[in-house]
Amino acid sequence: MLDQRKRIEVCFTPGEYAYYKDEFEIVVVIDVLRATSAMCAAFDNGILSIIPVPTIEEALEYKKKGYLVGAERKGQIVEGFDFGNSPFSYMKEEFRGKEVVLTTTNGTKSLEVAKDAETVVVGSFLNLTALSKWLSKQDKNILCLCSGWQDKFNLEDTICAGAISDFLISTGNFISIEDSSIAAKYLFLSAKDNYLGYLKSSSHRRRLKHLNLNEDIKYCLTPDQTDVIPILINGKLIKL
Amino acid sequence: MLDQRKRIEVCFTPGEYAYYKDEFEIVVVIDVLRATSAMCAAFDNGILSIIPVPTIEEALEYKKKGYLVGAERKGQIVEGFDFGNSPFSYMKEEFRGKEVVLTTTNGTKSLEVAKDAETVVVGSFLNLTALSKWLSKQDKNILCLCSGWQDKFNLEDTICAGAISDFLISTGNFISIEDSSIAAKYLFLSAKDNYLGYLKSSSHRRRLKHLNLNEDIKYCLTPDQTDVIPILINGKLIKL
Repeated sequence: MLDQRKRIEVCFTPGEYAYYKDEFEIVVVIDVLRATSAMCAAFDNGILSIIPVPTIEEALEYKKKGYLVGAERKGQIVEGFDFGNSPFSYMKEEFRGKEVVLTTTNGTKSLEVAKDAETVVVGSFLNLTALSKWLSKQDKNILCLCSGWQDKFNLEDTICAGAISDFLISTGNFISIEDSSIAAKYLFLSAKDNYLGYLKSSSHRRRLKHLNLNEDIKYCLTPDQTDVIPILINGKLIKL
Repeated sequence: MLDQRKRIEVCFTPGEYAYYKDEFEIVVVIDVLRATSAMCAAFDNGILSIIPVPTIEEALEYKKKGYLVGAERKGQIVEGFDFGNSPFSYMKEEFRGKEVVLTTTNGTKSLEVAKDAETVVVGSFLNLTALSKWLSKQDKNILCLCSGWQDKFNLEDTICAGAISDFLISTGNFISIEDSSIAAKYLFLSAKDNYLGYLKSSSHRRRLKHLNLNEDIKYCLTPDQTDVIPILINGKLIKL
């Protein structure tokens, strides 16, 4: 009997996307700390659209044109910009109904490499269950693309991807065959009772801790705070 | 107080080696199924030296010159060669005291990318404890370079790297700071009571199972069958 199940797989870094793409109709871009968490928070707070751009130069061009523009590199707001990728930046009243431009170290890079996929959506712990439920109804092959940290594997994106995989596999309609996906699921299962504790030794978390971002981290690791699913349409993220 | 501990880190694939190298004096190349397991078995069985070559073309050149040459691609012996990377190939009486040339899908590729490191040694479950003990005495920064499968992450190499990391960290003289290393250790800890069971869903194992290599797999996943440590000196592997 032919296996009718669709695939749910995990790619650890944008650099490895080339080895996975073309087999998946849906790509879920994940950058838990903090780009895709911030995007979910932004739409939850009424932002109309987000234009993700890969470079500071492009971000500056938009700024000159009068756009609201955020820029983050190595965990900090880039000089000359008003905000970075803290989810709390996007909760301001003045952002409601607005269009925002954003460039970040890792997250906007993943969106850039994935942009030609049939469907690109944004995932984080914040919209975990809403996104997983929506994905489970699509009957498509799905790739979770982790943003990593400066081209290297990171734990928090992988665990989030493992959580999505675990949900989809539990429906009986999805299967993982790549070792990366199996590892992500194992890592999620050992982390799920205490994300913060599990990630305490994570290099990225330590890096952000140094920048006094503990509130951001706690927020980004708290699942299911919103039902929004940001989707990339013609180079812009909008609310699905 | 300055942390005097040396680093033990894990790189998941040869493609990512560029992001890790230059910080490590010792690179441990790992290709559990089956290149580095075969290398350990070969030295344990009296082979004098192994010349790893990355391409079939180079392997053919050596064959023309009369060398004993093995070649494997996608789990099978390449046409025109007499053996591949099954550890059992190297247990023959006629190989004792001989020099052998070998090219494999993943393992010899990792040796090629790592060759300029100060020290390059070969690791597998077969020499796990002997290698870990030796590494623990070196007072050097160590990188475990997993060979993966066709540039992608694989579970068995990662678990072996996690085992080496766990041993070194337990001495109190080593620390892991990369998320990849932390993940490798977590995966090892959840796999260690039953490697074969843990890897039953691994894509690579399934691929080899299809080729009827269950005996090879069982052998390669059985720790501590030898004390040999193959080391790369001037392009040749010899017994340390």
